[in-house]
Amino acid sequence: MALVQIDEYGPWTVTPSVRRETDLQSLQADLYADFASFVGERDGYAFYNRFDNMVAVTNGRDAESHRRFQQRVRNRYPVTVSVGVGRAATPVAALGLASERLQATGSAQSADRREAFATGETNPVANARERVTVAHFDVVDATGSLTDRENAVDATLAVRRATLELATHLRDAHDSIAHFVGGDNVIAVCPDLDASAFDRAVSRVREATGIELQVGVSRGETAHEAGHGAKEALEVCRETGTRVQGLDGVSADD
Amino acid sequence: MALVQIDEYGPWTVTPSVRRETDLQSLQADLYADFASFVGERDGYAFYNRFDNMVAVTNGRDAESHRRFQQRVRNRYPVTVSVGVGRAATPVAALGLASERLQATGSAQSADRREAFATGETNPVANARERVTVAHFDVVDATGSLTDRENAVDATLAVRRATLELATHLRDAHDSIAHFVGGDNVIAVCPDLDASAFDRAVSRVREATGIELQVGVSRGETAHEAGHGAKEALEVCRETGTRVQGLDGVSADD
Amino acid sequence: MALVQIDEYGPWTVTPSVRRETDLQSLQADLYADFASFVGERDGYAFYNRFDNMVAVTNGRDAESHRRFQQRVRNRYPVTVSVGVGRAATPVAALGLASERLQATGSAQSADRREAFATGETNPVANARERVTVAHFDVVDATGSLTDRENAVDATLAVRRATLELATHLRDAHDSIAHFVGGDNVIAVCPDLDASAFDRAVSRVREATGIELQVGVSRGETAHEAGHGAKEALEVCRETGTRVQGLDGVSADD
Amino acid sequence: MALVQIDEYGPWTVTPSVRRETDLQSLQADLYADFASFVGERDGYAFYNRFDNMVAVTNGRDAESHRRFQQRVRNRYPVTVSVGVGRAATPVAALGLASERLQATGSAQSADRREAFATGETNPVANARERVTVAHFDVVDATGSLTDRENAVDATLAVRRATLELATHLRDAHDSIAHFVGGDNVIAVCPDLDASAFDRAVSRVREATGIELQVGVSRGETAHEAGHGAKEALEVCRETGTRVQGLDGVSADD
Repeated sequence: MALVQIDEYGPWTVTPSVRRETDLQSLQADLYADFASFVGERDGYAFYNRFDNMVAVTNGRDAESHRRFQQRVRNRYPVTVSVGVGRAATPVAALGLASERLQATGSAQSADRREAFATGETNPVANARERVTVAHFDVVDATGSLTDRENAVDATLAVRRATLELATHLRDAHDSIAHFVGGDNVIAVCPDLDASAFDRAVSRVREATGIELQVGVSRGETAHEAGHGAKEALEVCRETGTRVQGLDGVSADD
Repeated sequence: MALVQIDEYGPWTVTPSVRRETDLQSLQADLYADFASFVGERDGYAFYNRFDNMVAVTNGRDAESHRRFQQRVRNRYPVTVSVGVGRAATPVAALGLASERLQATGSAQSADRREAFATGETNPVANARERVTVAHFDVVDATGSLTDRENAVDATLAVRRATLELATHLRDAHDSIAHFVGGDNVIAVCPDLDASAFDRAVSRVREATGIELQVGVSRGETAHEAGHGAKEALEVCRETGTRVQGLDGVSADD
Repeated sequence: MALVQIDEYGPWTVTPSVRRETDLQSLQADLYADFASFVGERDGYAFYNRFDNMVAVTNGRDAESHRRFQQRVRNRYPVTVSVGVGRAATPVAALGLASERLQATGSAQSADRREAFATGETNPVANARERVTVAHFDVVDATGSLTDRENAVDATLAVRRATLELATHLRDAHDSIAHFVGGDNVIAVCPDLDASAFDRAVSRVREATGIELQVGVSRGETAHEAGHGAKEALEVCRETGTRVQGLDGVSADD
Repeated sequence: MALVQIDEYGPWTVTPSVRRETDLQSLQADLYADFASFVGERDGYAFYNRFDNMVAVTNGRDAESHRRFQQRVRNRYPVTVSVGVGRAATPVAALGLASERLQATGSAQSADRREAFATGETNPVANARERVTVAHFDVVDATGSLTDRENAVDATLAVRRATLELATHLRDAHDSIAHFVGGDNVIAVCPDLDASAFDRAVSRVREATGIELQVGVSRGETAHEAGHGAKEALEVCRETGTRVQGLDGVSADD
């Protein structure tokens, strides 16, 4: 996992005076669009996270390749970024390591920290052997039940509630990271879980929020490969009405 | 309030086969960056909402001007958008009206609805007289308490939890719309509330999540004007350690 | 006419060391894409010119509105821009005035000049009365004679040769500005010329380079209005095989 | 060399009616910005050429990797692109081959040709051994002699005239491709030429146009490597007042 943090962003947004909010929104969205492209080129997955902190899954890639993104930002944006990389048995542990390494280089709002690059003792060869599990969730009939029926405010709050419940559960129970990726979609990066774990996650969200999710799951050597399989498995959920698809070709509903 | 909805986006993302996730992330972020610029040019505020549904506050502007954005998307993107506009006494009512009008033109996933434009009987002159209230919240010492200390996963979950609690409270108690805008910032668009309402909102989030917010509030004829004042008021909170600033120049803490 | 110049761009591209060329290409293209959108919002026309110097026709607009673009660049790019605005009877004279005013604020490579804004004694009300003439040229059957037949190197050189010949002639004979805008298209901004002037320009390019152009011409209060009419007139050339269209509804060939 | 061509672009720009020119300018510039990034990621060089036809040098890269760009365009833009790739002893011959292959798949304006991919019998392994020569030219003291002194119209025409003279000479005498890249910079991709060839090119431009160029030249396995060396060599010209630098570390002036 990689953590990309804009250097001294808070202070910059109000120096020399308060900057126009819509310009900041554009800047953040553009930076993320670039980051998603960059990570996508390397068959990884990117999440906007908090925009000033962005997260990527880049299994099997040399950590040094992130330096190129750092250089690109310096050449294209009025801000610079620092990068932390971590590798561990679970996504949460890996991102924890990346966070600690970045924190060790200085505060996100320190004028002394600029373009820090904290990767630890990485071993690209070993990386190449690992597999990542991606789970792609969405809301069953979101268009019919939310978008075409509810006030957009309430449709959004419903999706946010389901996302937060799911992300909290997956973090606590399975050391996994889940992120909203637009529409009614949530993508989770997980260790090697079985179908029953996803079945429980779906049940948990239904009980806590009344929202019914379905999920496609797949494994691969890169996030792109795993994620692509997960999206195809999710299509099977949509067609068959099952709730969990993609692990061993069997639905957890069976 | 304006609601912009990508036409038939779900089906498009899997036709003729599942599209690469990072390309979709880039597309959505770019579309939002463009939307934020477009709305910013008109002194409004834009929120990414669910990305395939985006929301804007465009007080005092002719609803017809949104047609230009529709045309721009058609000329720049592989997707088209439909637009609904609503005007009412509160942000939630206005967005509800925009949602209903858009829903009345057809389903978001219907092949028959394309570039719908649903504004109702708008009256641009009357619009120009109204004032909007913007409240800009952030987490007290987010860098010290979250970014520089926590695993990025947990820092993000904390901000999400505070955001959801705040947005739900403001929606239920004050018919207001609150949206995460990056970092630890949440912007709310509100009717004419007094300082004590914001004080209660901050207390509510503290009690439910343990997270301490501060907020700058301001009114103006456009969202930009109100929002700019709110950001400056928030700077006063940062400097003085107060929790609510900007209404009548008095802090609610006094 | 407005002239937008990146401040100290040459030095920046090699500081602290030589920056990656493709990043600079992306930066310049993005800045121009933004500029074209910005100017387009105001119904003007924009040209990339030399990328570090960009040019726009913004008849009937308050010069002050360009300050907003300056602010936007500061908030979105690693560079800043200075702006000169000039108003005169011909496009060349107007751009000459804009150039002089900008030059008077300091050198393009001076560290002392940053975000200069040089508009002279502008009079927005008077501006609103003027009309601009736009001529949109392209190569007759460029696809059949060049793109589908020649080496791309030679197709491009042919278009460049025709463009340079045309631009030089229009500048010398009619104080007009012509710019390549992609494909085989050249757009000229002119004073009030009659059809015979365009007929002579087309002949001149044919004689000097062997390349046959056709042109649609139109007048309007904004460059967008005039340019839109010119593009429609050019469609008439394509359909009827005439060489000049759009002035008084009569072809110069008649 | 790779040639990227927008499919049926001319017809698209006027269907169903004439599209807004500034939107087209934005679209083209954005597509090129993306292309430059994509090619830059692979250590190549990209030129906007005619925007609807773009050109890249991608030595030592598998031709198949261009498919990824094709897919990205389909997912991000309202247009699609076809790609031709050619490999030969000189840049002009390589681009000629790429042009022929693309032309063989159908007309650029044919509704039948869409996302053609024409690479011939490419051999990525063999590719990896070749070296490319890049020459980076600029105008001696362009800021002092042009930008800070002339009407922007005339400064631009001067640079265009020098560029066209240079590009025509290098194409005729050395089967090389030269392209304007912004400001007063021209980049040429060449076979293995010696310093005297560049010296003659600089003299030729001086005699024909009165404009004095200087040039840095370098060789490398990728265009980025060669181009980076060329830019550093050009810096030596600027510092020492010589006209050709970078080949064997000796100036042609010596």
